[in-house]
Amino acid sequence: MALTQDYCVADLSCSDTPAGYPCKASVGAGDFAYHGLATAGNTSNLIKAAVTPAFVGQFPGVNGLGISAARLDIAVGGVVPLHTHPAASELLFVTQGTIAAGFISSSSNTVFTRTLYPGDIMVFPQGLLHYQYNAGQSAAVALVAFSGPNPGLQITDYALFANNLPSAVVEKVTFLDDAQVKKLKSVLGGSG
Amino acid sequence: MALTQDYCVADLSCSDTPAGYPCKASVGAGDFAYHGLATAGNTSNLIKAAVTPAFVGQFPGVNGLGISAARLDIAVGGVVPLHTHPAASELLFVTQGTIAAGFISSSSNTVFTRTLYPGDIMVFPQGLLHYQYNAGQSAAVALVAFSGPNPGLQITDYALFANNLPSAVVEKVTFLDDAQVKKLKSVLGGSG
Amino acid sequence: MALTQDYCVADLSCSDTPAGYPCKASVGAGDFAYHGLATAGNTSNLIKAAVTPAFVGQFPGVNGLGISAARLDIAVGGVVPLHTHPAASELLFVTQGTIAAGFISSSSNTVFTRTLYPGDIMVFPQGLLHYQYNAGQSAAVALVAFSGPNPGLQITDYALFANNLPSAVVEKVTFLDDAQVKKLKSVLGGSG
Amino acid sequence: MALTQDYCVADLSCSDTPAGYPCKASVGAGDFAYHGLATAGNTSNLIKAAVTPAFVGQFPGVNGLGISAARLDIAVGGVVPLHTHPAASELLFVTQGTIAAGFISSSSNTVFTRTLYPGDIMVFPQGLLHYQYNAGQSAAVALVAFSGPNPGLQITDYALFANNLPSAVVEKVTFLDDAQVKKLKSVLGGSG
Amino acid sequence: MALTQDYCVADLSCSDTPAGYPCKASVGAGDFAYHGLATAGNTSNLIKAAVTPAFVGQFPGVNGLGISAARLDIAVGGVVPLHTHPAASELLFVTQGTIAAGFISSSSNTVFTRTLYPGDIMVFPQGLLHYQYNAGQSAAVALVAFSGPNPGLQITDYALFANNLPSAVVEKVTFLDDAQVKKLKSVLGGSG
Amino acid sequence: MALTQDYCVADLSCSDTPAGYPCKASVGAGDFAYHGLATAGNTSNLIKAAVTPAFVGQFPGVNGLGISAARLDIAVGGVVPLHTHPAASELLFVTQGTIAAGFISSSSNTVFTRTLYPGDIMVFPQGLLHYQYNAGQSAAVALVAFSGPNPGLQITDYALFANNLPSAVVEKVTFLDDAQVKKLKSVLGGSG
Repeated sequence: MALTQDYCVADLSCSDTPAGYPCKASVGAGDFAYHGLATAGNTSNLIKAAVTPAFVGQFPGVNGLGISAARLDIAVGGVVPLHTHPAASELLFVTQGTIAAGFISSSSNTVFTRTLYPGDIMVFPQGLLHYQYNAGQSAAVALVAFSGPNPGLQITDYALFANNLPSAVVEKVTFLDDAQVKKLKSVLGGSG
Repeated sequence: MALTQDYCVADLSCSDTPAGYPCKASVGAGDFAYHGLATAGNTSNLIKAAVTPAFVGQFPGVNGLGISAARLDIAVGGVVPLHTHPAASELLFVTQGTIAAGFISSSSNTVFTRTLYPGDIMVFPQGLLHYQYNAGQSAAVALVAFSGPNPGLQITDYALFANNLPSAVVEKVTFLDDAQVKKLKSVLGGSG
Repeated sequence: MALTQDYCVADLSCSDTPAGYPCKASVGAGDFAYHGLATAGNTSNLIKAAVTPAFVGQFPGVNGLGISAARLDIAVGGVVPLHTHPAASELLFVTQGTIAAGFISSSSNTVFTRTLYPGDIMVFPQGLLHYQYNAGQSAAVALVAFSGPNPGLQITDYALFANNLPSAVVEKVTFLDDAQVKKLKSVLGGSG
Repeated sequence: MALTQDYCVADLSCSDTPAGYPCKASVGAGDFAYHGLATAGNTSNLIKAAVTPAFVGQFPGVNGLGISAARLDIAVGGVVPLHTHPAASELLFVTQGTIAAGFISSSSNTVFTRTLYPGDIMVFPQGLLHYQYNAGQSAAVALVAFSGPNPGLQITDYALFANNLPSAVVEKVTFLDDAQVKKLKSVLGGSG
Repeated sequence: MALTQDYCVADLSCSDTPAGYPCKASVGAGDFAYHGLATAGNTSNLIKAAVTPAFVGQFPGVNGLGISAARLDIAVGGVVPLHTHPAASELLFVTQGTIAAGFISSSSNTVFTRTLYPGDIMVFPQGLLHYQYNAGQSAAVALVAFSGPNPGLQITDYALFANNLPSAVVEKVTFLDDAQVKKLKSVLGGSG
Repeated sequence: MALTQDYCVADLSCSDTPAGYPCKASVGAGDFAYHGLATAGNTSNLIKAAVTPAFVGQFPGVNGLGISAARLDIAVGGVVPLHTHPAASELLFVTQGTIAAGFISSSSNTVFTRTLYPGDIMVFPQGLLHYQYNAGQSAAVALVAFSGPNPGLQITDYALFANNLPSAVVEKVTFLDDAQVKKLKSVLGGSG
């Protein structure tokens, strides 16, 4: 996006617009820095992984600047399940551990997979299904950047099984078996 | 996108660029019209539905113009399975029959569903999971427009089960059972 | 446009911005569907045609999504007079009847014309003069999509003859005869 | 447009793309300067005016930079007839003489007119019909800038009367009388 | 930028957004014209030059239109010191006098310089360091257009020496000598 | 940028375009990963720092995706001198050591500075002057992401003193003393 001012720190108390939030009136250096990625996310959960965002909602300084960030912590055996970012491409830097990652093209359902080690980077194009999981014997950490201030995160399992979309509809549109759908709805807290 | 010329009919013999194909040197009125959506797609298939695209690959006249189209035929009992368009929003016009449609937000996994009748339109935001199925007793037809010349179509089932992504990885990143994954790989032609 | 949120249904009570309206706080499935194109427009008028818009003003769900729609009804003998859409390209699907359509390039004043039948689509590049008229013996209907949420519609005749632009100025900038200008101002309700 | 390189001087020998021409391999300072607007255009013509462009075709250095220019010479009694730029907004600086200018909105056919003197600037939004004519007793000159490298110039009269669009169609889509259409086709060199 | 309305005159009493200011509710022809560039800027200053802006802050009519302007007055011996426009490319028309101008590429620090005479134009790509100075024996004047409504102006000397950035930091990041830094801080009013 | 395909790995053997390089015909997973940031850059140089880029030229997979990366190594006492990225905003993650960073606004020459520790992130808006230096007692490392595939890097000192821009011109446009300019030209390899 062409900038129309030096910066536009989000005033989160205002309504969002298609190009981002209105600009906060008074800003200081603290608006352009963020400390929230310094601490590991809590991986004591179902997926043994945590995505800690520094999107516009957490870090208003990125508003209008076409970029944002996140931290990825993946315990041994953990996984960031199949997901997309509808509104940005992702660039992942591995800082610790071993991560297996992959994405799938829309045109031909081609799979692109890599095992990544500290210092490696990988890019995941906007809107395409992808995943990351810990492929090593120790905790893995990655820093992630996005090509927009609010990339979104749509985890396929949560979209299907963590809400009230009726099981019959889920089965109709995914060809999954009824037992499978109900099992995952139960695990992820969905109803219907 | 700001236009930088009146039109730029795609020269599909050239390499694509991030903004679309290079422009064909010599054009006529026929380059701006397309007849391929006049005929119903063949719905004698697994999903009892057909998506007939008029994207830049079929209709080079839309190159650079920020728009494209498709035709949707859904037989009784048919479904366009859960999918996304990574590179465009979709606007659907029902011209015949009854279609149940829905999409899921990324932010909160909220489900938005509607039953649509002839003359109804519905919009599906870029990159979000959505579906359409025939909710009536007769064939349904819809015309679909996209906010880009090449929206892409990523059907979740095909991304997971119609390629060589190993079953163990699919299970790891989706929490689906092994039997379920192998069953669908078998149906959709995947390996691994 | 890159999205900066899943969707941004227009809050039409707020001021517009260069990227579209601020987002409505609370939304439901009804915000993403629209019924207003299901009914034929009234063609009992001077041009024997009606353009029924589903732009952001009528269908706030398209705000920020880069797409919108309209319905075109053209009675026998009717015409959508020469016009442009300053802010979007147009894609037209004929659903009924026969429509003659054309557009004119800016670079060389080249004319591109087609006769279109049910199922045919045609694209009209952003900002270029074009027209559609009923070329058959029965009513014609088309569904139209645009590459932006608010394409605008500037009908050349209305721009010249339906306002208070002085006849002398109209004549100066069009080379039309005074009698012709005054005749059309009278028909279209202009003054001066 | 976000730049993806410092500059991209057009290689006009290549095919254009939706974002502009491919970049020339070797460039020098001369590629970024242009002398063609230093000389008055020839106003010994029908409209007693001349538009001298410095668009990407004449001044390849503007390719990809979102800007271009032109010089406007209008003799006493001259006029730049009603026209649009489909692909850019225009900013006009008067450097000599007196110019009457106006544009018409699409939404409500509202007319915005001004008489401009040396040093005045006026902006004409992308795609809207506008005109300029000499409103003084001496030659007028203006420098014009555009918000894109190739704004286009569609003069309504030339689009209607300087090509082979059949008179019957012109009359159908403009409600102009047959005699008027044929008179202007004759003046401007059109056929049909 | 794709327009989403005919025009959007800035309401400067509202907060800015990443795409520009919200639109003023009621507008007239006067909103699209500006007289402030008709008068020479005051060049009785340190740089013997004046930049008179017609950016969105002075000329709200350019909001959302991707263009703005300025006037440059350079007395004999005057200079517009090394600077960038972070948010737009610049196109300069010389109307009077002789101007030496140059810009420097980022990729290879290549220098592109030209001496410009009345009628000459030169383009300076977005974000690159450039300068203009009077290379003749009389006052020079230029009209300048930008590819955005609010291009910004970052004069390197003022960024370094006209604020409270500590001298030690300036020296650290520029390798300038302490005496040089303190001398210029004194001239330009900086502290620290 | 709206994508017009899933991905468009740069074919660096083709001419660049304003939107990026044409797409490579055949791609694999290796095109989307890059190992070049795993190794520390060589800081045995004048600035005791190294910027190792993963821009489109080194990592063609980012072409068209609106993102790229770099690694920053700063030895004790080292500095990344005052610079801009003309074509992208920057987001910096500190992974090791202590970094003092700052940027300067264009509007008011306001300075925004922070001392950053491991885990901290800071954003530097597109086109604005900024710097980073080691503010600790051990080597510092940062991973950097950019909001575009080819952000550019214009170091002010190199732009002024590492080329053939004549000393007299440098002095004219910066007000630096002749001795200072010649000293730095000598250090940085410039002539003139």
